[in-house]
Amino acid sequence: MGEESGRSRDFAIAQDTLRGKIRDLEIAATKRELLFYRHFFRHQTWDIGLETMDTSNLRWWGWGTQDQDFSLEGRPAFWPTLQEWLALPREAIERETPPVSLEEISLRPPRLDDPVLASLCKLLGDEAVYTDKLSRVEHAYGKSYCDLVRIRAGHIPAPPDVVVYPADQGHIASLLAWAADRDIAVVPFGGGSSVLGGVEPAPGDRLTITLDLARLDRVLAVDSVSRTARIQAGATGPEVEAQLNAQGFTLGHFPQSFEFSTLGGWIVTRSAGQNSIGYGKIEHMAQAVRVVTPVGIVETKDTPASAAGPSMLQLLLGSEGAYGVVTEATMRIHPLPEVQDYRGILFHSLVDGIAAFRDLMQSKRLRPALIRLSDAPETAAQTVMSHEHRGLRRLTDALAERYLSARGYDPTNGSTLLLLGFDGDSKWVSQQWSAALEICGDHRCLSLGQAVGRAWMRDRYAQPYLRDTLLGHGVMVDTLETATTWSNLMHLYEVMVAAMKGTISTTGGGPGYVMTHISHAYPHGASLYSTFLGCQVDDPDPLVRQAQWRAVKQSATEAILTAGGTLTHHHGIGRDHIPWLEQEIGRVGVRALRSLKQTFDPDDIMNPGILLPPEKRA
Amino acid sequence: MGEESGRSRDFAIAQDTLRGKIRDLEIAATKRELLFYRHFFRHQTWDIGLETMDTSNLRWWGWGTQDQDFSLEGRPAFWPTLQEWLALPREAIERETPPVSLEEISLRPPRLDDPVLASLCKLLGDEAVYTDKLSRVEHAYGKSYCDLVRIRAGHIPAPPDVVVYPADQGHIASLLAWAADRDIAVVPFGGGSSVLGGVEPAPGDRLTITLDLARLDRVLAVDSVSRTARIQAGATGPEVEAQLNAQGFTLGHFPQSFEFSTLGGWIVTRSAGQNSIGYGKIEHMAQAVRVVTPVGIVETKDTPASAAGPSMLQLLLGSEGAYGVVTEATMRIHPLPEVQDYRGILFHSLVDGIAAFRDLMQSKRLRPALIRLSDAPETAAQTVMSHEHRGLRRLTDALAERYLSARGYDPTNGSTLLLLGFDGDSKWVSQQWSAALEICGDHRCLSLGQAVGRAWMRDRYAQPYLRDTLLGHGVMVDTLETATTWSNLMHLYEVMVAAMKGTISTTGGGPGYVMTHISHAYPHGASLYSTFLGCQVDDPDPLVRQAQWRAVKQSATEAILTAGGTLTHHHGIGRDHIPWLEQEIGRVGVRALRSLKQTFDPDDIMNPGILLPPEKRA
Repeated sequence: MGEESGRSRDFAIAQDTLRGKIRDLEIAATKRELLFYRHFFRHQTWDIGLETMDTSNLRWWGWGTQDQDFSLEGRPAFWPTLQEWLALPREAIERETPPVSLEEISLRPPRLDDPVLASLCKLLGDEAVYTDKLSRVEHAYGKSYCDLVRIRAGHIPAPPDVVVYPADQGHIASLLAWAADRDIAVVPFGGGSSVLGGVEPAPGDRLTITLDLARLDRVLAVDSVSRTARIQAGATGPEVEAQLNAQGFTLGHFPQSFEFSTLGGWIVTRSAGQNSIGYGKIEHMAQAVRVVTPVGIVETKDTPASAAGPSMLQLLLGSEGAYGVVTEATMRIHPLPEVQDYRGILFHSLVDGIAAFRDLMQSKRLRPALIRLSDAPETAAQTVMSHEHRGLRRLTDALAERYLSARGYDPTNGSTLLLLGFDGDSKWVSQQWSAALEICGDHRCLSLGQAVGRAWMRDRYAQPYLRDTLLGHGVMVDTLETATTWSNLMHLYEVMVAAMKGTISTTGGGPGYVMTHISHAYPHGASLYSTFLGCQVDDPDPLVRQAQWRAVKQSATEAILTAGGTLTHHHGIGRDHIPWLEQEIGRVGVRALRSLKQTFDPDDIMNPGILLPPEKRA
Repeated sequence: MGEESGRSRDFAIAQDTLRGKIRDLEIAATKRELLFYRHFFRHQTWDIGLETMDTSNLRWWGWGTQDQDFSLEGRPAFWPTLQEWLALPREAIERETPPVSLEEISLRPPRLDDPVLASLCKLLGDEAVYTDKLSRVEHAYGKSYCDLVRIRAGHIPAPPDVVVYPADQGHIASLLAWAADRDIAVVPFGGGSSVLGGVEPAPGDRLTITLDLARLDRVLAVDSVSRTARIQAGATGPEVEAQLNAQGFTLGHFPQSFEFSTLGGWIVTRSAGQNSIGYGKIEHMAQAVRVVTPVGIVETKDTPASAAGPSMLQLLLGSEGAYGVVTEATMRIHPLPEVQDYRGILFHSLVDGIAAFRDLMQSKRLRPALIRLSDAPETAAQTVMSHEHRGLRRLTDALAERYLSARGYDPTNGSTLLLLGFDGDSKWVSQQWSAALEICGDHRCLSLGQAVGRAWMRDRYAQPYLRDTLLGHGVMVDTLETATTWSNLMHLYEVMVAAMKGTISTTGGGPGYVMTHISHAYPHGASLYSTFLGCQVDDPDPLVRQAQWRAVKQSATEAILTAGGTLTHHHGIGRDHIPWLEQEIGRVGVRALRSLKQTFDPDDIMNPGILLPPEKRA
């Protein structure tokens, strides 16, 4: 944490060399590699004074890394269509409002005094402790629409005071004890991709340390006989897969945040990946977890099932860092599939698509890896806005369009696109496809082949980059999700879409556009995932824009709960869902979760303000 | 509760008529039907004085009903083999010691005074309240070895003071409030088939009410689109299946206790049925539960998955009546299969059988309904002791024996029997069998065909009756179970079997016989289920016999935990597993479960002494 710098000529040369290396590193794709080198170089700052250098290529103000983007080249219909659908003002399209620069942000200085900071450095090592502006800004928010609205405007009233990167479980246990002694809050941080405020420090006078798990990024052991792997919680999607793939396995967990989110984050939010139908939700994949709580370590048994009372494992999955820090987990893994055969199938309507989806899920014959059904608005958006030479777009061109229309399909108006995929050996996959097409055929469909599947695979992680572009052009855009039984699905769908559209309109967001898909499903029901878009209110104050968003979120959530949907299928509670937690799990349920909180974290240092509503004092 | 009786001639005739009806009823198989009529007739006692009539055909001193038995006819090798294996004294075989008669038992009178009893009758209705001897004896114990040892000897120091049969959820909520006001303990009771002391009233001065859920026996609703059913917790296996079958569905839960155990009991002990491989363990089948706790009703969301914090559902499954009373659940159901094709397959060794088992579980191609692998001792027992004209016994006869031996198989010495079955439509089942036999063939096996499967199906619920016979002849017999990963399975097996045999011998039980099977399994591991037999110590004192059993249980459990197995895969904790709960889930884990207990049941009225160790006072 030194600030002393000998600015001799030698140091200048050393600086140049390092800057060159860091520039190379910015091309390196993963955050983790970068962090490794940042740790390394930061450590050097004792000697060469690089302390304030901005080495990261992360988009602290948005999604992912600076070098990536969702390119609108080759998508000529994008802006005109959006303008029409959202009634977006012309100037919003023409003029992009960039985020503020880091320099423009006036950040509250860290509130740790020197002796406390020194004590922390002594505990974890200097190389693990950061109080620089960039680190604190990067860890101030998750990646929700409101987070981005606020951070783009430089509105960061409650950043963490310090960010630490513990090296191991021992460090984490020491840190929690150290923090409890000093009444300092600790926010566990994985990839920081929460969309519900799950990593945001609580406002107020209490000091906050953000605990970034980036250094716990290894697959510790693979049991190829039992098909399980012990994996550290800070490993990102690519780190998990790269290490497992090298041994012939996959975890099969591919959420949209895959490139940046971590195993620990998935576990504490009950995440679902895009292949959850084939590989399960994270709570089905986790066989055991180890959690460091302020009162001690909890390690659940590595066994495929148990009857030893209520499940300790299931009581920790979804705990959002409020009970402790997940440091590692034993995960169920699968052999890498020989082939992945993903194809598009078009249905005349959502009702037909859902009927086919349900039959596919309830068939004993089939084990699909992916099923994803887009409603008509999402199918239309994919068609109109897709690349002119790739994917769905081609279907609307020339001959294709006439052919489709003759068969009664219109991807821009009413038809629904189902993506279906199987992972396995080629013989089995082809048998599965035969059986699947037979089922789909019962519901009138048109097979579009593998090109659509390939296009989806290629772009699957790119969408969040597009959100940054939209925010720069005055578009409000967010997603929400729920789940219900098959028999209640259409009702829930209609009610929630109507609520979103209604409130976008009444909050000055224009007509709004809501598109929905079903991509997590079970024999007994399915999840609904909606993206809603509208015009941002014409007021640059991020809190006004937050209020607009909150109104839509509130009406949608109330509609969901009234219609029998769950508050959340795979995003978690964070801060944003807390107002409805009691409605979801009941008064007694909230008391139960709170009693667990008090047991694991009696001093309330763990991620305060997350998961549970503030306690009503008698 | 009236005792007044007008003994006129008319009444005598009415009595005779009713006695006749009741005699007919004793032939009726299900406990529930009987209870229904008992309620009906008890209610009549106000008028005709049938109060003390013993109408039940339940074996209060053992398993099941009086009219059923495990017949040893046609099994000439049974006693000689058992005598040889266990070194059983000749007199034990020749002389059966029957249980004491009901009249011989000196039962502590109910400790409720008249006003309290009157208040209870007012609350629930007279027809719901029983203080007669038989009712209290029937509800004094579960069905573990120790329970039967004690009850056969008439040793019942802590029977419930009263047994109630509430009619609905409202009754149950009122009862819990009533009991909390009076500091009376409440023991929820389903089928009473706990083998770990889960329904046994706590000793001590506190009054105990046993709450029998027999009247909550209905399937309330079937959602055939979502394939779920809302079912009341007191429904027994046959009641669940009969009501679902009538609508074309099955729950698919067939534990050995199926005929008498209830949905609620399955749920609170995390039960597994014999078809758990095909239909899941109860915690996979339960989509939502409703639980009446002393602080209010908890109802979890009827949704196939949720991310709304730690799972409230999973926190109630396995709660053993210590948090409240499960009154109903929404269960995942399945269409009735067109065919059930179950066959026997013989392997040369346990290692071969396990390798095939694991391959079957890890194949994406297969969805077996049942796989059950018996180790060599269990295969030998089934062979030697089976009926001379049915099942495995026939294999050892004449030609068959020579054929097997030429191929290197010996079902009485080293070979292991695998039962494999598929449920579904006949075409699919036959395809599954082809794929399955290919996999089994990789591990050298001999297909024995469907006769073995049919024999198993026929006798699957009969074994507990045999236990009663064995107890009458001085045999100690009990079962225990655990689970672990595939890679640890053989190690765990060897260690636990050695521990059981060792302790049977050192406690005067002779050489002992331990047989084990694997019938609940997952892609990532499996359960082990052992039956151990030895000679009872030659002391009729049930507490001495209990001590002998406890020594074996203790050494086996410690071996299991040391070798990495779980304390229990599907029996639960009850009273008998409490000493090891902390070793299983950790100190912090126990505190977490206790904090839930204190939240749901602040006055500790729910099933006290079950699930959690007594609190250590500071």
